[in-house]
Amino acid sequence: MTNRVTQLLKINFPIIQAGMVWVSGWKLASAVANAGALGLIGAGSMKPDLLREHIQKTTTATNKSFGVNIPLLRGDIEELISVILEEKVKIIFTSAGHPGRHIEKFKNSGCVVVHVVANVKQALKAEVCGCDAIVAEGFEAGGHNGLDEITTMALIPQIVDAVKIPVIAAGGIADGRGMTAAFALGAEGVQIGTRFAATIESSAHELYKQKIVEANDGDTILTYHNILPVRALKNPFMAEVQKEETQKGMTKDRMMELHAKGRERKGIFEGNWEEGEMEMGQSSGLVHDIVRAKEIVDRMMKEFEETKRRLVP
Amino acid sequence: MTNRVTQLLKINFPIIQAGMVWVSGWKLASAVANAGALGLIGAGSMKPDLLREHIQKTTTATNKSFGVNIPLLRGDIEELISVILEEKVKIIFTSAGHPGRHIEKFKNSGCVVVHVVANVKQALKAEVCGCDAIVAEGFEAGGHNGLDEITTMALIPQIVDAVKIPVIAAGGIADGRGMTAAFALGAEGVQIGTRFAATIESSAHELYKQKIVEANDGDTILTYHNILPVRALKNPFMAEVQKEETQKGMTKDRMMELHAKGRERKGIFEGNWEEGEMEMGQSSGLVHDIVRAKEIVDRMMKEFEETKRRLVP
Repeated sequence: MTNRVTQLLKINFPIIQAGMVWVSGWKLASAVANAGALGLIGAGSMKPDLLREHIQKTTTATNKSFGVNIPLLRGDIEELISVILEEKVKIIFTSAGHPGRHIEKFKNSGCVVVHVVANVKQALKAEVCGCDAIVAEGFEAGGHNGLDEITTMALIPQIVDAVKIPVIAAGGIADGRGMTAAFALGAEGVQIGTRFAATIESSAHELYKQKIVEANDGDTILTYHNILPVRALKNPFMAEVQKEETQKGMTKDRMMELHAKGRERKGIFEGNWEEGEMEMGQSSGLVHDIVRAKEIVDRMMKEFEETKRRLVP
Repeated sequence: MTNRVTQLLKINFPIIQAGMVWVSGWKLASAVANAGALGLIGAGSMKPDLLREHIQKTTTATNKSFGVNIPLLRGDIEELISVILEEKVKIIFTSAGHPGRHIEKFKNSGCVVVHVVANVKQALKAEVCGCDAIVAEGFEAGGHNGLDEITTMALIPQIVDAVKIPVIAAGGIADGRGMTAAFALGAEGVQIGTRFAATIESSAHELYKQKIVEANDGDTILTYHNILPVRALKNPFMAEVQKEETQKGMTKDRMMELHAKGRERKGIFEGNWEEGEMEMGQSSGLVHDIVRAKEIVDRMMKEFEETKRRLVP
C-alpha cells in the first residue's frame, strides 16, 4: 500500500516501530526495516558513541529505510545530532521538547523530521516550524506521556482536523484492529511501541518481555501526573510511587529522587521486577506472545486487511 | 443497517445516546428515539416520581424504542426499579455497581439489560450474570469514570476478545470517524454522551452547552483518582480540586466535602461556571455546534458510511 507516510519514509507498510529506551537498538530497528516497516533506533538510553555504533550496525544489517528517535531534552543533544548527521541518517523522530531549535540543521542535511506530540497546540507548532509529519501519542502509550492526558481516540481526529501534514497515531495500538481504527480516525500511519518491545529482536530483558505478555488491561499506571507523566507496569516500585502520589501529592524534587536512579534500565534492561520501571502501554493486554518483529508486521497488515473487509463486506 | 445491537435494542442505527444527569430527560431521549437511535433517560439526577414523569412523557412523545440508565449505587435504587418496571420500560442500562443483585427482576419482566463497564473483569462479570450486552467506557469519557483509567482504544479489543455478548463502545466518540474506529476495534454499537449533551433537546443550561462547543482538546480533567474518578471541564472549581489533589493528595472524606454540594446540578443545569462541575468528555473538542439530536444521528451515520468508503475505496 502507498500513502503519504509510506512515501515520506520510503517504507512498504505505514507502520513505525517506536524508539524505545533499552529496547530498540540496531537489532530491532534493522529487523523491522527488513520487514518493510520503519525501524527506529531509540537514542534515549544511548551516549553519542553508542548511538554511532548502533547506526553503523543498522546500516550494515539492512539496505532499507530506518531512523533515529531523539528526546530533545537531553543535555548532550548537540552531540547526538552531530552523530546522526555524520552517519547520514535521513529520518529523525524528535520527542520531549520543541523541534524548532534544531530543524534547520536537519533540513539542510536533507532529513525527514517527524515530531511526537500529545495535543493540538504542539501539533500546530510542529507543522509551522517545518516538520514533515507528526506522531500523535495518546494517554494509553507506555513510557513518557503528555501532560494533558488526551487519549488516542479523542486526540487523532482533533489533530487531523488541525494540521495538513500526515498524522501517525500512537498509543493503545497493538494489532490490525487498532491500526484500522487509527486510519478511520484520519491517521495515515501507526507507531507501535509495546507490541515490538516483546519481540525476539528487542534488546530488553526476557523478564520484562514476559511481563508484557502477562499484563492484563488494568495492569499499567500513570504516575508523576502534572510533572513528567510516565506509564509503566504496576510493580512494587510503581505501586509505592502511586500510593505516595495519591496520599501526599508529588513534587518535582521528590520525583527526581524516586525516578532518577536508573529505574528504566533496572526494569527494562536488567529485568528487576521489584525496583525497576517497566515502561509499557495499555496495549500490553493485547500482547500474548514473544515473536520475531517480522511476524508482527505481517500479522498487523493481514489483520488490517481483514478488519477493513469486516467493515465493508 | 442491522447487527446484534440494533436487533437487541430494536433500533435502526447502532447509536446509543448516553444517560446523562441533568441532560437527558424525556425531550432528548424521545428526540433520539424518533431519529432511529436509542434514547436513554438518565435517572441519575431524578427522584422516583420525576423519573416516572419522564418515562410517561417519553412514551407519549415516541412510539420507538427507548430506555433508562440507572446508577446502581443510588440509595433509593429499589424505588427507581419499581418505577421502571411499573411503567413497562423494556431497556435498562445499569452503571456504577454490580447488576447481579437486580437482574432477575428485570429479566422476569422481559427487559433487555445492558451494563456499563470499564475493564475486562467487570465485562466478564456482567456476561456471567446474564446481561444482554455491555457498554465498555474508556478513560476519555465525561462524568464518572473507571478506576483503571483504560482508554477506549485499548479497552474495546480486550473486552471484545473476552466476552461473547455484544460490546458497545463509549468514550471519545463524537462523529462517524470515531464510530468507524469503534467498529474496527470490534464494537457493534457506540454510546455517545457529550455530543448529545450539546443539542437543542438537551435539558442542560445554555452556558454548559456553549462550554462544550468552546472546549479544546486538553480542556477536560480527571479528578478524584483512585476514589471516584470524574471527568469535567477544567473550570475554576475543578482547577482548585486538581491543584489540591496534586499537591496534597485526596481522601474520600475531602472528596465528599468538595463534590457533594450539588456540583453537577450547579454546573450542568444552572450553568454556574465558577462553582459547578461541568461534566464532559475529551470529545468535547470535536463538538462545534448546538443542533437537533436528529442532526447528530444523521451526520454520524453519513460520516460512518463515508469513513468506511475512505478505508475501502
